[in-house]
Amino acid sequence: MSRKSKGINAERELIHMLWNRGWAALRTAGSGSMHFPAPDIIASNKLRKIAIECKITKEDKKYFKKTEIQQLKNFSDYFGAEPWVAVKFYRTSWFFINIEDLEDTGKNLLITHKQALIKGLGFFEFLGEIIN
Amino acid sequence: MSRKSKGINAERELIHMLWNRGWAALRTAGSGSMHFPAPDIIASNKLRKIAIECKITKEDKKYFKKTEIQQLKNFSDYFGAEPWVAVKFYRTSWFFINIEDLEDTGKNLLITHKQALIKGLGFFEFLGEIIN
Repeated sequence: MSRKSKGINAERELIHMLWNRGWAALRTAGSGSMHFPAPDIIASNKLRKIAIECKITKEDKKYFKKTEIQQLKNFSDYFGAEPWVAVKFYRTSWFFINIEDLEDTGKNLLITHKQALIKGLGFFEFLGEIIN
Repeated sequence: MSRKSKGINAERELIHMLWNRGWAALRTAGSGSMHFPAPDIIASNKLRKIAIECKITKEDKKYFKKTEIQQLKNFSDYFGAEPWVAVKFYRTSWFFINIEDLEDTGKNLLITHKQALIKGLGFFEFLGEIIN
């Protein structure tokens, strides 16, 4: 399976999980020739709107381009949504990371599995169904 | 240009128009193997969220499948958005139609150019920038 297909499958998995918990969720179309920012997923349960940049990796860390996260932030500001990053590492479940919790490496933004365990939220916690 | 391409171009035109007026707007991805409802366009200016089913036609009327409008309604209910239909007839600009204003022909739902002129809103009126 291509890297792109795996990415789309990961997005679809999250969308299934969100609908199963009563949220409306959708994948956004590739930007094509357009230059407007768009997250991978938009979801809402009426009370909360969330914009998600969604990544899977076989490693124990994931880098993001600063422009990518800036665009997520810009879109979310305009739309009135919370900006989140969702990451799935090798054989882990999903972690939801506040973009403020990404580590600035100078060139990129980084989340390691270790930091995700400390700062990230699991799916049900993210949805507010489990209060820590 | 294929019918699909023309449809995508029409969606992109609306998205440009919305961003130009300070709204965040995006095209949704084709449902693919997923069975969840999704409108063509989602947009928000923080205060209002709108879900749009978007059509162009060379005729002076446009039919919608009842299931299509029902799915738009369902999605909008879950998401917390206003459901709208945007239609562009032969050589006209965009009309925004409240789904309650579509005519029930028994099998389908219909909007004619004539009815759109009476019941529809123009772009700026739709955004609340012109009050009639």
